[in-house]
Formats: sequence, C-alpha cells, structure tokens
Amino acid sequence: MHAVELKHAYRLLNHGPTVLVGSLHAGRSNVMAAAWAMPLDFDTPKIAVVIDKATLTRELIDASGVLSLNVPCVAQRDLVMSAGNMSGKNQPDKLARCGITTHAATHTGVPLVDGCIAQLECRVLPATAHVAGPHDLILAEVITAWADARVFTEGRWHFEDAPSELRSLHHVAGGHFYAIGERVSALPAANA
Amino acid sequence: MHAVELKHAYRLLNHGPTVLVGSLHAGRSNVMAAAWAMPLDFDTPKIAVVIDKATLTRELIDASGVLSLNVPCVAQRDLVMSAGNMSGKNQPDKLARCGITTHAATHTGVPLVDGCIAQLECRVLPATAHVAGPHDLILAEVITAWADARVFTEGRWHFEDAPSELRSLHHVAGGHFYAIGERVSALPAANA
Repeated sequence: MHAVELKHAYRLLNHGPTVLVGSLHAGRSNVMAAAWAMPLDFDTPKIAVVIDKATLTRELIDASGVLSLNVPCVAQRDLVMSAGNMSGKNQPDKLARCGITTHAATHTGVPLVDGCIAQLECRVLPATAHVAGPHDLILAEVITAWADARVFTEGRWHFEDAPSELRSLHHVAGGHFYAIGERVSALPAANA
Repeated sequence: MHAVELKHAYRLLNHGPTVLVGSLHAGRSNVMAAAWAMPLDFDTPKIAVVIDKATLTRELIDASGVLSLNVPCVAQRDLVMSAGNMSGKNQPDKLARCGITTHAATHTGVPLVDGCIAQLECRVLPATAHVAGPHDLILAEVITAWADARVFTEGRWHFEDAPSELRSLHHVAGGHFYAIGERVSALPAANA
C-alpha cells in the first residue's frame, strides 16, 4: 500500500465500489459491508456513506467520530458477503469468523482492512448529527488515504494492468456482485 | 423500457454507475453528468446526489424541486463526456450539441434521457435545503423508475446476457471510464 495524495482521494470511490466500513470505540471494533458510499467533495476530500442506525458500526462511529472506508477486491468476495450478513452485535468474534484482519490507521487507530485495494481514514464532520436527521447518512472528511500500487498509481486506477482478483466489487443484490470491467475512453467534448 | 417496482429502484444505482442528471424549470431544461450519486433508502426509495451549486442543473432543481437520474451505457460514452464538460449556462443548445434527446417523465415532466439503461424520476425531499448546508448534496425521493429489459429484469441487472455496449459506465478521471464487468458470486455467509 502507498499513500494517496488527498486531492486524489475521491478517485478511490469515484467509480462506485462497494466498501467495507471499519469502526472503533473504547476498544471495541467492527467491520461491515456497505454499497452506499460516494465522494462528497474534492479538496478537502469528504465522503458520504449510509449506515443503518441499528448497526454496531453506527453505534461505534457515533461514539468515536471516526471510521474507515476500505475498497475490497474480487479475491475478498466471500469475506465481503460475510461482513454484510453477520452482525457484530450478535457475533462478538465476527471479524475472526469472517476471516478479516485489520491494522490501525495512523491518526485515529480506526481499523483498516488488510487485503483491500484502497483504504480511507475518515473523521465524521461536526455537522453530521444535524444533517443525518431522519436519514442514515454519515458525512466525513478523509484525513489519510492509501491504495494498492498494483492497481492505483499516479492518482488513477489501472485495473487492466493487474490480476483480475484485484478488481473492485460492485454489489447488485443478494450476494451477487459485478467486478469492475474494461476500460472505456470517451472522445473529448467538442465546443466545450 | 419497462417500469421497475419502486422497492427495486435502489438496485439501479447500487453498483455505483455514473449518471446523467435531468432537470427542468419554467420551460428551460438541462442534462449534466454526475459520478457522485447513490441510493439513500430502500422503500420508500430515496437517492443522494452531489450537484455543484454553480451549475445550471442545480439552479433548475432548486427552483422546481424535481430531477431525473439516468444510467448511461457504453454506447453513450461520448455523450456522457460532453454532458460533463459543457455547461448549459454558456451553451443554450447544449443538448443538441451533445446529441442528447429526451422525453418527459410521467408525473413531473422532467427530462429522461433516451438510450439510457435506467431512469429514475425524483422529487427533492423537503428537508434538503436544510440538509445541504455547506455541501452540494441533494436528497430526493424516487417516484417512478424504468429500466431497459435487455439488461434489467425481475429486479436485477443481467449485463452478462446483453451486448457490451449496454453496460453501465463508471467514471474514474478525465474522460476515462470503466464499464461494469464480470459477474462475481460469493459464498453464503456461514453462521450469519
């Protein structure tokens, strides 16, 4: 993994991958899967993610104000499925059962998921409690970002140069994903 | 195009495609590209999308309270690039220049983009003015949804059964996209 310049952090999520959300409070940590995440701003980079208020992850994030977004790859598909279906509330050893190992992020200690192709360490924006209201939306600032140099270099994804097991996952429904596919380039806009 | 049950509307965006945003107010309409869009809720279905306050699209949406999200496909890559780079403020004939044709959505008349593989007619949530605050976030309810039956049936995407030109686009940077790729299935979670 190598550090990603913060001005390029939005690109880690720009193509819409499913993510794993890491959380930590008072020694208790969790990882869950979430398909509803996106960039919210470029620089300072911010993200928006939907996390159900009924989850342990949400409890931990609300208590600590920190979270991580991790972009898993095809090689981790079973792990992502397990992380999405098993609750940390009911299964205190969820991470072990899911085969998830983590390491602590630089500034906040929030867990980053090993084997993911990108990781974003985030701090919840002060406005979020106010914003979330009836919705399950969390808005956060990205404070550090990393990516796997085999698929992301010079501020760009390069999936076509790496094994297909390193492609990002995009959840459609019920444990079925699509991997990100072929590169497609558009003509420059005329008269822009 | 066929109607999509509202309870399945979130699946049109669940895998993170880049979208075209349609807008209309007082006879003036526009279409722009946006990579930052996601589902916000299942049923009643809601979406979140980031639209810069400096854009004509944002002006029209703020004035009318309606918008459409349209999922373009590989065959439309040049059109998406043009719609993302050209401003409707500076180019009153933007749609013609981009080769975009539209038709009016059922309830609101907001433009739906022809040739897209999915279309969602949306109404801005009353709370949005309050929520958006310093951010460019719009929250909206989906009131009608349609999809191309060649790639979406029975509440599911089936890209693998259709020509590759009908795959969704996922923008990475600077006019480069990835098409959605191969189907990947995970094992059911053990002990979930």
